Amino acid sequence: MSRTLNTKGGAILMTGLCGLAATSCCGSGEKGAQDRPNIIFFLVDDMGWVDSSVPYDGTVYPNNLRFNTPNMERLAQRGAIFSNAYACPVSTPTRTSLMSGMNAAHTGITNWTSTLKDTPSDATGGAIAMFEQASGQPGQEAESYPAGHLFRPDWPLNGLSPEPGIGNTVYATPMVRLLKDAGYFTVHVGKGHWASAGTPGASPYNMGFVVNVAGNVAGMPRSYQGEDNYGNTPEKWNYLAVQNMTEYYGTHTHLTEALTLEALKTLDYPVENGIPFYLYMSHHGTHTPIQRDDRFVQKYLDAGMDEGQARYASMVEGIDKSLGDILDYLDRKGITDNTAIIFMTDNGGNSENKQKGGVMHTQNKPLREGKGSVYEGGIRVPLMICWPGHIKEGMREDTPAIAEDLFPTILEIAGIRNPSVVQEVDGLSLIPELLGTGTIDPERELVFHYPHQWKPYWLDDIDFLSAVRKGDWKLVYRMRTQAVELYNLREDIGESVNVASGNPEKCTELARILSDRLRKWNTPMPVNPATGQPVPYPDELPVTE
Amino acid sequence: MSRTLNTKGGAILMTGLCGLAATSCCGSGEKGAQDRPNIIFFLVDDMGWVDSSVPYDGTVYPNNLRFNTPNMERLAQRGAIFSNAYACPVSTPTRTSLMSGMNAAHTGITNWTSTLKDTPSDATGGAIAMFEQASGQPGQEAESYPAGHLFRPDWPLNGLSPEPGIGNTVYATPMVRLLKDAGYFTVHVGKGHWASAGTPGASPYNMGFVVNVAGNVAGMPRSYQGEDNYGNTPEKWNYLAVQNMTEYYGTHTHLTEALTLEALKTLDYPVENGIPFYLYMSHHGTHTPIQRDDRFVQKYLDAGMDEGQARYASMVEGIDKSLGDILDYLDRKGITDNTAIIFMTDNGGNSENKQKGGVMHTQNKPLREGKGSVYEGGIRVPLMICWPGHIKEGMREDTPAIAEDLFPTILEIAGIRNPSVVQEVDGLSLIPELLGTGTIDPERELVFHYPHQWKPYWLDDIDFLSAVRKGDWKLVYRMRTQAVELYNLREDIGESVNVASGNPEKCTELARILSDRLRKWNTPMPVNPATGQPVPYPDELPVTE
Repeated sequence: MSRTLNTKGGAILMTGLCGLAATSCCGSGEKGAQDRPNIIFFLVDDMGWVDSSVPYDGTVYPNNLRFNTPNMERLAQRGAIFSNAYACPVSTPTRTSLMSGMNAAHTGITNWTSTLKDTPSDATGGAIAMFEQASGQPGQEAESYPAGHLFRPDWPLNGLSPEPGIGNTVYATPMVRLLKDAGYFTVHVGKGHWASAGTPGASPYNMGFVVNVAGNVAGMPRSYQGEDNYGNTPEKWNYLAVQNMTEYYGTHTHLTEALTLEALKTLDYPVENGIPFYLYMSHHGTHTPIQRDDRFVQKYLDAGMDEGQARYASMVEGIDKSLGDILDYLDRKGITDNTAIIFMTDNGGNSENKQKGGVMHTQNKPLREGKGSVYEGGIRVPLMICWPGHIKEGMREDTPAIAEDLFPTILEIAGIRNPSVVQEVDGLSLIPELLGTGTIDPERELVFHYPHQWKPYWLDDIDFLSAVRKGDWKLVYRMRTQAVELYNLREDIGESVNVASGNPEKCTELARILSDRLRKWNTPMPVNPATGQPVPYPDELPVTE
Repeated sequence: MSRTLNTKGGAILMTGLCGLAATSCCGSGEKGAQDRPNIIFFLVDDMGWVDSSVPYDGTVYPNNLRFNTPNMERLAQRGAIFSNAYACPVSTPTRTSLMSGMNAAHTGITNWTSTLKDTPSDATGGAIAMFEQASGQPGQEAESYPAGHLFRPDWPLNGLSPEPGIGNTVYATPMVRLLKDAGYFTVHVGKGHWASAGTPGASPYNMGFVVNVAGNVAGMPRSYQGEDNYGNTPEKWNYLAVQNMTEYYGTHTHLTEALTLEALKTLDYPVENGIPFYLYMSHHGTHTPIQRDDRFVQKYLDAGMDEGQARYASMVEGIDKSLGDILDYLDRKGITDNTAIIFMTDNGGNSENKQKGGVMHTQNKPLREGKGSVYEGGIRVPLMICWPGHIKEGMREDTPAIAEDLFPTILEIAGIRNPSVVQEVDGLSLIPELLGTGTIDPERELVFHYPHQWKPYWLDDIDFLSAVRKGDWKLVYRMRTQAVELYNLREDIGESVNVASGNPEKCTELARILSDRLRKWNTPMPVNPATGQPVPYPDELPVTE
């Protein structure tokens, strides 16, 4: 059991949180300047930190050996890989952080948005009946609730909005709108998932994209298979059916391949007209449903994987092929040297789904747990940044980074200085750190917050957890039991030994930092249904030792 | 009864059919030249020749008084209106003619394409069982066939393809690809319907559009109502559900309004970056389902219309509002003087649908019949071309024009000379005629061909008809009964008096012209199921007088 504690609160240290205006910039920022780099943000869904053959912290873990991703390796050699990069536990919070530059505990968008607006997406507090409509999956009653079960807080469950005054949303200036305003030809291909239907954030066009292929409110595809029209059949249709893919209906084209073909098609216009482009290649893969990519599956079956494992590995290799096709396209067009590439995934690997085969809750080892969790398996993600002629090839960056950092990072690559934004940006540009012209404090605190129940059944290492990382230390706050845990990530990347009891001062410090942040941001806290009150902040816990 | 006849065949006069290379051009044609005009092609669906308050031949017919379209009048004052403009009897043939520059009897794409490929869309020869899948409407057995009933021919029922080698398609260089290659920022908003799913022509991106909103294989919307997500609900979904409109789900936004908002959104990027644009504003309105536009319906009810008539009139006024909003946008952006506008509809008004109220088969009076027919009600359409500083304001053009003419016309406005195309273009640029720098032979022959049965029940004035117009004269060939009719359109715009028996030489001349054209183009001819043979050309008919 962890030692619970209270602290006195107090002023939060803002070290490393100086916001966008403090980022250094390069590039001309002039509209129409032809020397501005193209930018590709290649975002993968649900692919875990060890779900490729790239060893992000230099160690080859057993899981890395299960995957064959030569193009990810190819990209890794061209720029920086991050050993300590973070996203949120689930999709929408990461995507809205990327778009707004705000931490998810700051926006309050801490869970995924439902397809239809005003529809809770988590499985507590009356939401279960609406689960089917929201997810396109069969509704399911909670099997059981543990003692002291919490309800979700009020939160902006309609997601991010580029327009003010929209109910249950957070209004922010989208990063992509800034790129478009600066003249970038901005392309969206794949998954959007910033907001619910019936709100402006549902449309990539409102977020600042000049072109949109397939993006909307769906957080997963109804199907990856062209044979069943990606879900667009009378038998299969639900809100997750993938739109804009009519060309491929009835063909044997995995969605990952189809989206890649569409992406490359959209680039011809800016490339041929000398316009800098921003491609947001936002793959649905490797989210569930885990459906085999026939081009690659056999080798994994031959290697002895079970069907689920082989399907997943084939989907990962499909993503790798997509990356390779894009790299080849840049080479063919002669624009490799003028194109920056960011490769990332939106959260940790899913370890709570039988479709993936193997043993549940182990797929992200050495990391603990997976998607949905604030433990490392849910939030530590692959991140690579390649910018030819600027970022050194083959380098590894160990300073922690987090999703909202990509907002100022991408704007800095685009040469956009001091953009006018309505929100307070939390992220820091990673460029000075990567170029050696500045540093990000390695002790910068990073906050993760999940005041929800993910599934219609209880998951002890996922539901209602909050956490802060500072340097090597990480505090996990279990909001249901009002207990804290402490881990030293340098010594214990798997978060297997809770060292809270031996480090009360560190617990107190981190509990205060986390609490101050949550207070400052007025972060939604789950509610105790017995009292109707939100759970206490971790620095308000009674000393119980 | 008409007099049947035979002729000797012989060489077809190619007067007026010299193809694209012979068109005169203006404009620089240089990529990136900022003085190239923007072009808006505003295409309406199923809105008949008298379904507005614009009198296209100068006569105000009773039907014109039923509609309130001030913005169409506003546009009419800014350029040329056409009294004798033609499209095909149904949607896809017109749309593929516009895109290819070919007459529909030349492409052989003479009926609408089904949503799913290799699926016949007409109601003969075994197609009825597939009607539901193709149209999204309930399948229906033919109620009866008349004596001598025909079967549809083999025809390219998958529509137009921008790539060669696709089964059951016609390969052609799309007009929009030429515009894009010339640097135009090409935008597709609304209805595509050039081809079936699973073929390249299904995607506007393959046709040369840089941006696509909502366009695909659907020939009509499942619903115009935001309240039911334009058909994207579990209860309503079929292949006609409108894609890319997630933002408006659950809102009270008529599809016509939503598409207009999307269109204007897409123009910001080219306008702000000084890039010439081509906007293909391809409305689903006023196709069935006839669903009221609440913004306008009451005045029509108050005027004594029945519910169906009022709904339709409100949809027309919604279209008019869309046009006005676009004109206002151009004014706001200061680009009115540098923007050419083509306004057209894709076929005649539907007079065979109870949803529209009134008396069936009368809605296009003074014209005979409506959509589906080669009689004037099915093919004579509104057409206006406005090009500030070039085309005189307030002029009326009486020389007949036809859909395929828009291909060279638009390219000429864009300043694209001698484009490389794989097909033989039939259309003629209308620009020299409008500018007075050249003429189109008013005796140019125009061909219309519908070798299909439109509905699961027989329609005598629609099914299996072919026609040619030359000057004031028009020959209609009834392929089922192998009879011809002759009309003088100057004297009898309603085609009420068949003057074939009094004009045997004119019948012979027009029968030969039509036959030669059908032979030259190897146009699909319907099949007599009793013999398995195609019907004879009209100049092969036995003399029966």
